[in-house]
Amino acid sequence: MSSSDTALPGVLRSDRAGVTTLTLNRGERFNVLSEQVLDELSGQLRTIAADPSVRVVVLAAAGKAFCAGHDLREMQASPDMKYYQNLFAQCSKLMLAIQKLPQPVIARVHGLATAAGCQLVAMCDLAVAADHARFAVSGVNIGLFCSTPAVALSRNLSRKQAMEMLLTGEFIDAQTALQRGLVNRVVPEAQLDDTISALCESILAKPAAAIRIGKQLFYKQAEMGIEAAYQLAGQTMACNMMDASAQEGVQAFIEKRPPDWA
Amino acid sequence: MSSSDTALPGVLRSDRAGVTTLTLNRGERFNVLSEQVLDELSGQLRTIAADPSVRVVVLAAAGKAFCAGHDLREMQASPDMKYYQNLFAQCSKLMLAIQKLPQPVIARVHGLATAAGCQLVAMCDLAVAADHARFAVSGVNIGLFCSTPAVALSRNLSRKQAMEMLLTGEFIDAQTALQRGLVNRVVPEAQLDDTISALCESILAKPAAAIRIGKQLFYKQAEMGIEAAYQLAGQTMACNMMDASAQEGVQAFIEKRPPDWA
Amino acid sequence: MSSSDTALPGVLRSDRAGVTTLTLNRGERFNVLSEQVLDELSGQLRTIAADPSVRVVVLAAAGKAFCAGHDLREMQASPDMKYYQNLFAQCSKLMLAIQKLPQPVIARVHGLATAAGCQLVAMCDLAVAADHARFAVSGVNIGLFCSTPAVALSRNLSRKQAMEMLLTGEFIDAQTALQRGLVNRVVPEAQLDDTISALCESILAKPAAAIRIGKQLFYKQAEMGIEAAYQLAGQTMACNMMDASAQEGVQAFIEKRPPDWA
Repeated sequence: MSSSDTALPGVLRSDRAGVTTLTLNRGERFNVLSEQVLDELSGQLRTIAADPSVRVVVLAAAGKAFCAGHDLREMQASPDMKYYQNLFAQCSKLMLAIQKLPQPVIARVHGLATAAGCQLVAMCDLAVAADHARFAVSGVNIGLFCSTPAVALSRNLSRKQAMEMLLTGEFIDAQTALQRGLVNRVVPEAQLDDTISALCESILAKPAAAIRIGKQLFYKQAEMGIEAAYQLAGQTMACNMMDASAQEGVQAFIEKRPPDWA
Repeated sequence: MSSSDTALPGVLRSDRAGVTTLTLNRGERFNVLSEQVLDELSGQLRTIAADPSVRVVVLAAAGKAFCAGHDLREMQASPDMKYYQNLFAQCSKLMLAIQKLPQPVIARVHGLATAAGCQLVAMCDLAVAADHARFAVSGVNIGLFCSTPAVALSRNLSRKQAMEMLLTGEFIDAQTALQRGLVNRVVPEAQLDDTISALCESILAKPAAAIRIGKQLFYKQAEMGIEAAYQLAGQTMACNMMDASAQEGVQAFIEKRPPDWA
Repeated sequence: MSSSDTALPGVLRSDRAGVTTLTLNRGERFNVLSEQVLDELSGQLRTIAADPSVRVVVLAAAGKAFCAGHDLREMQASPDMKYYQNLFAQCSKLMLAIQKLPQPVIARVHGLATAAGCQLVAMCDLAVAADHARFAVSGVNIGLFCSTPAVALSRNLSRKQAMEMLLTGEFIDAQTALQRGLVNRVVPEAQLDDTISALCESILAKPAAAIRIGKQLFYKQAEMGIEAAYQLAGQTMACNMMDASAQEGVQAFIEKRPPDWA
């Protein structure tokens, strides 16, 4: 990439009827997560978190690949412990911001997703992949074990499946990713947008409060013992029931009519 | 349901040769978990926990559906935070009582299992489903995210698979439930009882002590770090070995004869 | 086994180009984990842990079976609580030593793996099975629930799948083990060595530091909440990047040449 390219946005945003699409915009460089891209993506998520008009986020990417992970040129230019610590802290914060976002995030994986790119897919709430997409945590191939991607990957795949990818750096195809739980749907690339639209429509048809409450509860309870998890979840459901949208939803269900959430 | 129906038992119990079948008995209402049903089911489990003649429990249901979750009519009639807190605490306590029960519990899922009904399946130790059974955590469709079912579901399915069901409220079929680990076997409905009988026979052929010790250990160690888990499990095995039934089992194995546990 | 057989090594070791193969050497007794075998295997792992010339360990077995678990004759000869406590503590320590070993361990499962034998497979980082291999945690059949194997099994398989094996003691075949995540590959026995060699070659092609750092991080972060996991993993990646092999790997990647790690 020529230096002038940094003047172009690293992440594009487009909004349509409650769905915000963030598009990684370094297609010619396989959408590596440069500091600029990390900054812009983090900033976009901060803005979206506070914007109730956004109901679902789609994380997409321009060019041929979805995302090839960190920007090795930048990393090579700063062989400094402090620099690396800040870089991985920044990236981890971004990954956690996806999980903490009130709105669901759907990865639109139209091509290769490697290293931190594979991690992005793993951190999204849902993921839809094109049938030719491929996934790897390939840092080990250059002597840099994908430790931060391992955090996300091991919370999606079973232990030995994750370990094999991390130790060998080898690719899995989209069907394998589907069977192992890394993605929710695999479709021909031409059907990627329709499949994601259908998921978005399904989520848009639910009250925002229920989705926000539920996503937050899901990840919190996952780290608790089951008794504490049930206490939190029971409290969460009681609060959710007091929300006007749930009261209307229950009423509508009993009256066998569609809920009126307008 | 007419009010007089509350005079009928919410849960039926039948016993045969060590196997106790509890049958949800509100078939005409898809076996919703009314307060009465929750009370009766909890009471039955308390009684069974103290009854050494019961070796296995089958959780079944009358009518067309397995269980459609909470009783929304009751919930709608009491739009009160305190009421909801108590209701979900009561239900969570029941769900945990299944896991804490000394005897294994097998879900007999002959039809639809939604919301807290799907949660019941997830909380049982084993589950056998008819091939036309379907599963959903559909609360989100009426604005009430299935937060307590999420606790159970996320301990059965992988993260993105659970999240998809919770966010979309959509059904999965029995084969999908099998592949994802929500149920152990899928068979034509006509073979449901034979399949469950075979599992019961297998468990009945083992000493009660080993089953009781093992079930308890399984769920305890699942919440521990691996070193602590091994400490507890090693201690558990040593105690188990001191039991007369294990001593006889080992002796019989060495002598190449069937154990005499009568 | 005649008493003189204890003079034979319980575990054989062979080394070739960075790959150390440990072979359980009680084939005529299905490689039961006698005290002698446990001692020798633990000793070998201690030696290997301190030997940087070993890059990968293959855990294999002589004879027809892979491993049939504990030595019930020995256990029957010492019906003593203290003895059993020490035995299971010793065995658990061995199992944890596999996970703590700096080098990856690949199970070569050419035949039956039951009870603590199935646990060995579960504790290895990777596992390759012959297509006729079978797996069970069958202690419950003799009244001794596989509590310590449950620790390993429940960290590989989903909850209900693990519970079914533990309660029924029944076998699963190699294909089922593959689908459930207990093994990474299933091949005809004639291809077992080539398949394992390919995995070893893949690991040997990576710098030792990255593999060592990564394996340790993987199991540590698995027991942490996600935020703490990311902190540790980010720190780990920064340290990994400061290693000369990663610096060379990144440099080589940028220069589009193979890394020079000689």
